Amino acid sequence: MDVQKTTINAIRILSAEAIDKAKSGHPGLPMGCAPIGYTLFQHFLKFNPADLAWENRDRFVLSAGHGSMLNYSLFHLYGMGISMDDLKEFRQLGSKTPGHPEYGHTAGVETTTGPLGQGIANAVGMALAEAHLAAKYNKPGYDIVNHYTYALCGDGCLEEGISYEAASFAGTHKLGKLILLYDDNEITIEGDTDVTFKEHVGARFAAQNWQVLRVDLTGDNVDNVAALSEAIEKAKARTDKPSIIICKTNIGFGSPLQDTAKCHGAPLGVDNLQKSKEKLGWNYPPFECPEEVYEHCKVAGEAGALAQAEWEKMFAEYAETYPELAKEYKSVMAGEKPNFDEIEGLYDFAKPMATRQTSAQVLNQLAAYMPQLMGGSADLGPSNLSEMKDTENVKYGHLSAENFAGRNMHYGIREHAMAAIANGMQLHGGMQAYCATFFVFSDYCKPAIRLSALMGLPVTYIMTHDSIGVGEDGPTHQPVEQLIMLRSIPGIKVFRPADGKETAAAWVSAMSGKEPTVLVLSRQTLPQYEGSGKAALCGGYVLEDCEGTPDVILMGTGSEIELCVKAKAALTEKGVKARVVSMPCIEEFEKQSAEYKESVLPASVKARVCVEAASPYSWYKYAGDCGELVCMTTFGASAPAGVLFPHFGFTVENVVEKALASMEKAK
Amino acid sequence: MDVQKTTINAIRILSAEAIDKAKSGHPGLPMGCAPIGYTLFQHFLKFNPADLAWENRDRFVLSAGHGSMLNYSLFHLYGMGISMDDLKEFRQLGSKTPGHPEYGHTAGVETTTGPLGQGIANAVGMALAEAHLAAKYNKPGYDIVNHYTYALCGDGCLEEGISYEAASFAGTHKLGKLILLYDDNEITIEGDTDVTFKEHVGARFAAQNWQVLRVDLTGDNVDNVAALSEAIEKAKARTDKPSIIICKTNIGFGSPLQDTAKCHGAPLGVDNLQKSKEKLGWNYPPFECPEEVYEHCKVAGEAGALAQAEWEKMFAEYAETYPELAKEYKSVMAGEKPNFDEIEGLYDFAKPMATRQTSAQVLNQLAAYMPQLMGGSADLGPSNLSEMKDTENVKYGHLSAENFAGRNMHYGIREHAMAAIANGMQLHGGMQAYCATFFVFSDYCKPAIRLSALMGLPVTYIMTHDSIGVGEDGPTHQPVEQLIMLRSIPGIKVFRPADGKETAAAWVSAMSGKEPTVLVLSRQTLPQYEGSGKAALCGGYVLEDCEGTPDVILMGTGSEIELCVKAKAALTEKGVKARVVSMPCIEEFEKQSAEYKESVLPASVKARVCVEAASPYSWYKYAGDCGELVCMTTFGASAPAGVLFPHFGFTVENVVEKALASMEKAK
Repeated sequence: MDVQKTTINAIRILSAEAIDKAKSGHPGLPMGCAPIGYTLFQHFLKFNPADLAWENRDRFVLSAGHGSMLNYSLFHLYGMGISMDDLKEFRQLGSKTPGHPEYGHTAGVETTTGPLGQGIANAVGMALAEAHLAAKYNKPGYDIVNHYTYALCGDGCLEEGISYEAASFAGTHKLGKLILLYDDNEITIEGDTDVTFKEHVGARFAAQNWQVLRVDLTGDNVDNVAALSEAIEKAKARTDKPSIIICKTNIGFGSPLQDTAKCHGAPLGVDNLQKSKEKLGWNYPPFECPEEVYEHCKVAGEAGALAQAEWEKMFAEYAETYPELAKEYKSVMAGEKPNFDEIEGLYDFAKPMATRQTSAQVLNQLAAYMPQLMGGSADLGPSNLSEMKDTENVKYGHLSAENFAGRNMHYGIREHAMAAIANGMQLHGGMQAYCATFFVFSDYCKPAIRLSALMGLPVTYIMTHDSIGVGEDGPTHQPVEQLIMLRSIPGIKVFRPADGKETAAAWVSAMSGKEPTVLVLSRQTLPQYEGSGKAALCGGYVLEDCEGTPDVILMGTGSEIELCVKAKAALTEKGVKARVVSMPCIEEFEKQSAEYKESVLPASVKARVCVEAASPYSWYKYAGDCGELVCMTTFGASAPAGVLFPHFGFTVENVVEKALASMEKAK
Repeated sequence: MDVQKTTINAIRILSAEAIDKAKSGHPGLPMGCAPIGYTLFQHFLKFNPADLAWENRDRFVLSAGHGSMLNYSLFHLYGMGISMDDLKEFRQLGSKTPGHPEYGHTAGVETTTGPLGQGIANAVGMALAEAHLAAKYNKPGYDIVNHYTYALCGDGCLEEGISYEAASFAGTHKLGKLILLYDDNEITIEGDTDVTFKEHVGARFAAQNWQVLRVDLTGDNVDNVAALSEAIEKAKARTDKPSIIICKTNIGFGSPLQDTAKCHGAPLGVDNLQKSKEKLGWNYPPFECPEEVYEHCKVAGEAGALAQAEWEKMFAEYAETYPELAKEYKSVMAGEKPNFDEIEGLYDFAKPMATRQTSAQVLNQLAAYMPQLMGGSADLGPSNLSEMKDTENVKYGHLSAENFAGRNMHYGIREHAMAAIANGMQLHGGMQAYCATFFVFSDYCKPAIRLSALMGLPVTYIMTHDSIGVGEDGPTHQPVEQLIMLRSIPGIKVFRPADGKETAAAWVSAMSGKEPTVLVLSRQTLPQYEGSGKAALCGGYVLEDCEGTPDVILMGTGSEIELCVKAKAALTEKGVKARVVSMPCIEEFEKQSAEYKESVLPASVKARVCVEAASPYSWYKYAGDCGELVCMTTFGASAPAGVLFPHFGFTVENVVEKALASMEKAK
């Protein structure tokens, strides 16, 4: 048997063995797609095993994340830091080889996948980042940024709505260096794809302005590396369209369960594993692989190391010729940030403004200092105020196929893909990505926001129109439960600022951190408070205080702080000592020291009112046994905002009443 | 001017006037699509103004819900219960004419729309319901169920992923009586559709097995009712494919802002409204419409009334010939349910089982009693155990283009469309719809679950693999924040049963209520408890009690009840009196009387431990100032479930320790 065949079979068998040992996993994909993985890693993927983080590497996204063993087998064979022992530890606590590929956990994994379809959108974001950075930093003779983005997906990814959204975006933007490999095995968990997925995938992608290529990797053609290589060459050659290569495969190739749903998501079992080995002519003991395979694979990594060395040389010349550009390139790739304290006027707001307006002001100030800041809206730019406006000094432009250097993006009415594309941009490096929509449509983004948090990606979500303050558009457009939906995600920051200074603090926090930040912003005008400021970086702080120990604490976020402040004044007139605590970011407040938290919310002050035009679930913790809540327990309604707030109990009178009731309870 | 033109202009002007009066709204669509609305209502839509709920009416879904004034103007002109005063009250609190169409609030509105794309999936669900009921109840000469489903959508709907998912499903299922009208005006909020949506919509739908038709309704052809009628006739004639009619329109036709994004989402303003009237030759005072228009429109309603009368006659004959079928048809259309107390063995479970298994058992028992029960999974049927299995007596079959009578569905890997299709089925009537996926992918369904709740649709969501109990698949597949995400939606029920009897109660509650129910079910085996049972219908109850007043209350849901029960035993050995409260459904518990709630959770017992392998946000309310939480504050990890539970603190020892700590605090 030739070494190519042996290598491809090594991918199949190592994957199946690891899955059998773990008694859990998905052998169908790695066995069916072994020739795809092999062809890509052996002949195309540009990577340096000694520096997997090299910026100009090709990206490979396994969008069908359940096939993680394909990744791990390849990483093992190609010297990318996965040992045979790691393979044996597949799906065990703390191992380098978890059930689905996890970014930040296993070197070489470009993005966390598993929730289907999102990997494709991540890849679109990466390809977009490449195109943007290339347009910005490349110079004649110096293609500093110059790599391909490959993604491998299955039927599951392509049935998900996000894959169409992302593909439509990629086609419109002519992302010519994006190459999607489709594992077309005609099998899903419930059986043949015909039962529910009869669409013509090639025609679909053609309709979305992709180049469509086809390769048969079934039966006698199963290891047709030459045909696949030719297709990949054609894909690379076509620069004005992304390409999809539809690869006909046999799921679970080589196993007795081949071509059935049975080999998709369960170990083969001892018998079938043995039979697979026999069928494939694999005569090695478990978790062993002949040396010739490693020798064969080494060539790819060596080529990558050489490529990196050449790139470093080129970059050194480039840095001499274009020192400013090179410096900026290095700075954005390293994720360097300006000193936000030095940006003049960042916290200056005089007039009452909606926080979507204060956000626009801050965004536009930051944009001038951060060449990596880049984003847009899901077709709500004029409402989200998410655009970086050209000034005399800086032209941001709009990103398009004709102007990849543009920094304002049109994501289209595709909230889910938008968030996942932003994740991909952030993953690529060189980008500080943001995106925007109405807050209620965070629902559509939720699956991708979860992955921002799981991966620790500092994507910024600008979410305006944040409550019943939306007014006439009615309950479909009025968020009620979205704040708690997002606050409950581990590893996220949700900021709902009350005024301009808090908005500035929220943006600074978003730009500084390593986690996603959601900025929840009002449609309607809000006052500016004297007591607000950088203290908002602590998440919660005393905005207005009384003399001595308060009788009651009024707390809340965003637009409802106005009610708290007015209620405090009304209570003062009644001789009640009230403190107002603004809590723009519960997550940051929770990170503060116990002393600080006690200083803001003394345990001894049990009379509390929490005011937020949203689900009460966020507030029970701070309300405590004696607290009262002024929150939303139903959906909103269609009417002017000025009518809705009192209709749902958001009045000074009600807050005062609740304060007195809480004081009564606390007695 | 002929009356047809006057009527079309009446739609335009009444819409623009109402929007101007409200100082809020979207004139672009009603002005551009007036000829579409007119043609449909005047010449095609089968409806009886005197009985808008007639079961065999044609359905019309305004998927582009922001164009709500199109609906209201048409409802007004066609005598469907909207008065001129209602139009003047557009977007005011409590009016019949809210900002977006609201099902259950305004008669004639078939579904609540606004969140883009979902209306198309709702329409797919309605068309599917029609096809299923027709296959089941029609007999030669008796087409009892026989209507079309029309939907009108814009670019926004078609850019959303859910529209592709729904269209792929509809094409595969050959829903020939589904007709989609696409308002192709080339304008979105951020400008020309070219900036981000260059795909070829016709080719896209053709790839998804739709018939594609085109009509020009721009410029001189603006009111080309004949051409549109011809296209609709062609669409109706094609029975083996759904049809899309791509209608080229001018957004905001007649206004000076025509063909610009400016007329999409803001009132025209006094001047531009006046100019529009002049351009369209409209010489009537505000909110007035010539009598000839009403006379002209009346014909359509009269034809509908006649159609209903003929249908009633046919049905009477049908009921004589097929009395059993007619009875069942009437029963399912009325949403009648069996007496669940009389179903033998519904609460019988002996062996330890996963709650996904107990759910499968209950589902299969109910299926035999409920011919309207229908659903399936997003390609996870074998894992969700969501199939109704054929028995000797009943064959459920699988729904497909070849067998519309089948009751098991293959939704495909399209969670968002799945939920919205289920909403559409439920809206149609004659259906008790359910759908299923892994609980973590409730994220993908969230936008449609929200609409189930907002509309009050009793769709059942079977969500299995409900915690870190998922095990090896890792954090991407382990829900942490999904319980609170769903519990915080107003008007929903989230059941996380601890055993078989609680599962049965959850299903009974789901089948009986008027709101959506989410069943959150374990992958792993759980014990059966003696103390569980129908009490679970109260949402929370004492599962195991101590003598006298408890020293501490242990509460939780689902798999964590096992920990509570074991911890209680351990505490008893230590001489601590502990009560175990099972809280399968917080929402139902909250509906109980204050006395009942006090009897379960006496205010005087302040020592409490809440145990749930999910975000703590659900529990602060019940924990109170002295309570302790055993919850998840991070994402999970990839490892066997038996390793993960102790790793994250879910042990008897930890619950005991927390109980003692809480007792200490409560002292």
